[in-house]
Amino acid sequence: MTGEKKRLAELAALVQGELVGDPEVLIGGVADFDSAGMGEITFVADVKRGTRLDQCKASAIIVPLAVTEINRSAIRVRNPYLAVARIHALFVQEPFVATGIDARAVVGHDCQIPAEVAISPLVYLGNRVRLGRRVTLHPGVVVYDDAVIGDDVLLYANVTIGQGCQIGSRVIIHSGTVIGSDGFGYATDENGHQIKRPQVGVVQIDDDVEIGANTCIDRATFGKTWIKRGTKIDNLVQLGHNVVIGEDALLVAQVGIAGSATTGNNVVLGGQVGLGGHIHLGDRAMVAAMSGVHNNLEPGAIVAGIPAIPHKTWLRASAAYAKLPEMVRELRELRRQVAELSRTMASGEADHPENKE
Amino acid sequence: MTGEKKRLAELAALVQGELVGDPEVLIGGVADFDSAGMGEITFVADVKRGTRLDQCKASAIIVPLAVTEINRSAIRVRNPYLAVARIHALFVQEPFVATGIDARAVVGHDCQIPAEVAISPLVYLGNRVRLGRRVTLHPGVVVYDDAVIGDDVLLYANVTIGQGCQIGSRVIIHSGTVIGSDGFGYATDENGHQIKRPQVGVVQIDDDVEIGANTCIDRATFGKTWIKRGTKIDNLVQLGHNVVIGEDALLVAQVGIAGSATTGNNVVLGGQVGLGGHIHLGDRAMVAAMSGVHNNLEPGAIVAGIPAIPHKTWLRASAAYAKLPEMVRELRELRRQVAELSRTMASGEADHPENKE
Amino acid sequence: MTGEKKRLAELAALVQGELVGDPEVLIGGVADFDSAGMGEITFVADVKRGTRLDQCKASAIIVPLAVTEINRSAIRVRNPYLAVARIHALFVQEPFVATGIDARAVVGHDCQIPAEVAISPLVYLGNRVRLGRRVTLHPGVVVYDDAVIGDDVLLYANVTIGQGCQIGSRVIIHSGTVIGSDGFGYATDENGHQIKRPQVGVVQIDDDVEIGANTCIDRATFGKTWIKRGTKIDNLVQLGHNVVIGEDALLVAQVGIAGSATTGNNVVLGGQVGLGGHIHLGDRAMVAAMSGVHNNLEPGAIVAGIPAIPHKTWLRASAAYAKLPEMVRELRELRRQVAELSRTMASGEADHPENKE
Repeated sequence: MTGEKKRLAELAALVQGELVGDPEVLIGGVADFDSAGMGEITFVADVKRGTRLDQCKASAIIVPLAVTEINRSAIRVRNPYLAVARIHALFVQEPFVATGIDARAVVGHDCQIPAEVAISPLVYLGNRVRLGRRVTLHPGVVVYDDAVIGDDVLLYANVTIGQGCQIGSRVIIHSGTVIGSDGFGYATDENGHQIKRPQVGVVQIDDDVEIGANTCIDRATFGKTWIKRGTKIDNLVQLGHNVVIGEDALLVAQVGIAGSATTGNNVVLGGQVGLGGHIHLGDRAMVAAMSGVHNNLEPGAIVAGIPAIPHKTWLRASAAYAKLPEMVRELRELRRQVAELSRTMASGEADHPENKE
Repeated sequence: MTGEKKRLAELAALVQGELVGDPEVLIGGVADFDSAGMGEITFVADVKRGTRLDQCKASAIIVPLAVTEINRSAIRVRNPYLAVARIHALFVQEPFVATGIDARAVVGHDCQIPAEVAISPLVYLGNRVRLGRRVTLHPGVVVYDDAVIGDDVLLYANVTIGQGCQIGSRVIIHSGTVIGSDGFGYATDENGHQIKRPQVGVVQIDDDVEIGANTCIDRATFGKTWIKRGTKIDNLVQLGHNVVIGEDALLVAQVGIAGSATTGNNVVLGGQVGLGGHIHLGDRAMVAAMSGVHNNLEPGAIVAGIPAIPHKTWLRASAAYAKLPEMVRELRELRRQVAELSRTMASGEADHPENKE
Repeated sequence: MTGEKKRLAELAALVQGELVGDPEVLIGGVADFDSAGMGEITFVADVKRGTRLDQCKASAIIVPLAVTEINRSAIRVRNPYLAVARIHALFVQEPFVATGIDARAVVGHDCQIPAEVAISPLVYLGNRVRLGRRVTLHPGVVVYDDAVIGDDVLLYANVTIGQGCQIGSRVIIHSGTVIGSDGFGYATDENGHQIKRPQVGVVQIDDDVEIGANTCIDRATFGKTWIKRGTKIDNLVQLGHNVVIGEDALLVAQVGIAGSATTGNNVVLGGQVGLGGHIHLGDRAMVAAMSGVHNNLEPGAIVAGIPAIPHKTWLRASAAYAKLPEMVRELRELRRQVAELSRTMASGEADHPENKE
């Protein structure tokens, strides 16, 4: 926290929201609804949760436009999550402090490292590594030979950047993530042995990408595995060789994407989703958590299931699934009835009285 | 191993089991059924596997109560797994050796570290870190500023403890696990860009928790992500921001839990299970491996499937699933028969003889 | 790259392929189809993709036997992937350079380390560790006491080899992978507490195994978890205690295998597959991505689904799944019709005219 306080009017202007109440209220930080107190701003994301507005001890509240009646200091906005993200960033941003290269870091030869960096002890940089300005490398980070890292990048503890990989500016990568491990490529020989196919491509991560912890992004067999600008990737995600993810995508934890699959921009993949190799997902495609996609998806498609089908169909199909045992019974009963009807029919004109019961 | 031998009678008393045979047999360790030899004790978990009791070369055997006829030294107990866990722990426990802080570790300022610790080379401790007594930190461990670690904690190689996170006593965390990575929280702006929501909460791990390798537990957006006393978490598990796991839970490998989901005590989640965000699982709820839960579960609920349904229903539904192609055929055939019956019926009184065939 | 050029005839001989065109063409490397240029060889894997052979700028192309008409320098082979793997390996192989043990590595006592090794800074070796010749250990690697590592092994950054684990020759392990974490074994006591079962076995990895990044292989409870010769394991895979994987298997990313499951040789597990504990998969069994196997599989079985069923059945069942809502409707409609037919039938001989409509 910077400790600096902001006038509520200033915050309202920042998020282009409508100020309610006292513009001079001073705000020094953001807190959640239940714990926010004097001098803090909080938010409610939707109207339902806004019913207890009077119980909140915050000095101001960010509310959605749907909240029209409010008799305390507030900012009305279209998207409270977005407003709080921006206001919160304002309070938590800390100025970069250039500590240079710690003596207990290991730096190879022919690296290009500006003075304005913060390289922790126990960091390892290979040869010919190029770092941008204001790069922060935490302990245990390993950057292999010839890697290039842009400005304002933050690598948390024990992150690995593989040989020749390229990281854009303002990229954040959380602890334990591995960029540039070999793709999983083998050819089976006559004896059933798996012969390794050399993986000589790289990984390119564009600007403003954030990647969670213990995620793995494999280098390309040839060329590059490519994560485009603004995409956010959660923890424990697996991206195979030659995968291309478009801009501003959201990949939730434990997603796995097989080799050479590609996506357009703004796709959203739920947790534990799997994408098959060599398929393409159009812009804004959304895949529900735990679904598996084996075919191309049109832009804007919303799918679910293994294999994935349109989400609306899946909702009905999965509801029906629970009734399958009942359906089996009903089907059996129907067959019995129809068989009986057929028999009756066949003999009916012969006027068997027992069929009338 | 301590090398110290124990009398069988002593072991029987430890596990409150019924001694069979010679109370004076000396036992120096535990081994599995097939490899156990003289001076060792082994176990059989159920009666079926107990049929070869005479082939076992161990000096004594732990058997379930159901094994009534046994003509060799043994301990009869209700739960052989539990008995062997306790007896084995007795033999493998090693006294803590305080080696202090290795000179090749890096320690920040204002840390509180008792003399009685074992901090390996290549460990990194930030500033104001507080360690309990008998803490063991293996190489590559990174503890960020202001983290607090309780007594008798063991962190294996390359574990990361994030800023301000709190670890209770007797916690064990295996290699590569990341505690306190940022939660996956973004708000989408007008241009489709994903704006990061600051994640300013912490992770709190209570006493006697054990966490596997390469697992990720995200810090809370606000407040804390919380793992309560005695819970055991396997490898490669993902816990999102603000998740709360009750006491004595078992989370098997590759489980993924979305943000703000909470559980009661003694829940069991099978491997690769997914829990949706903001749901609650009651005490003792059990979720079968690879299932996906999107709604609250009652205490004691046992569920399976994606989406999860009662386990018994799922068993029948999944059996029926394999017969779906057959059902489709039968349904088609029934429609044909019914259509024909209807036609026949409509014209039946007109006495069409071909319908009698 | 070695930089050395090879005659096309030499390459054709290496892969036992049929030379087409000029045997004297000099090749210095391998590239993919679109980027290959003068002095390089590339490949097409199947005929369909071979339609643009004339647009390729490579000096030579590896093609499948099915490509019969080709009027440029080429090598015809049965399996282009295998041929390119072998030829590419020839060009990228680099001679081992023995740099010895970096002064900033930490080495315990009584280790056996030949002169011919390359141990990076920030590596940690415990006590009594035995390394083979030409072992390469990257920064952050931690090898615990009593581990044994064979010849020509390459461990990437931050790999952990647990106490007493045994790694064969020519094994490659990618960054962040943990070999020898404790198995997930607990016994529940009378109070619902989870009591740890000591995990005293090891992991044995045989020759020519390759393991991806951030994968976890647990040590055995007793005995060993065992990965046999030539098996290839992708990123983020979880192998529980006492798992045994046969030779030449392929385990794709995010596979999870529960304790004591075993497989024969040449099995293939697709991404995110789960295997239940204590089951056995016969030789050459194949499991489709995202499937869950709970029972033994015969040699050569091909299965899919959760729970897994024969792949062919699954293809039809999953296609039918999408039609479940329709089936429910049809079933309801059929019941209505049959009920009506029954009513009609019962009263039919009474000649109700409305049934004729």
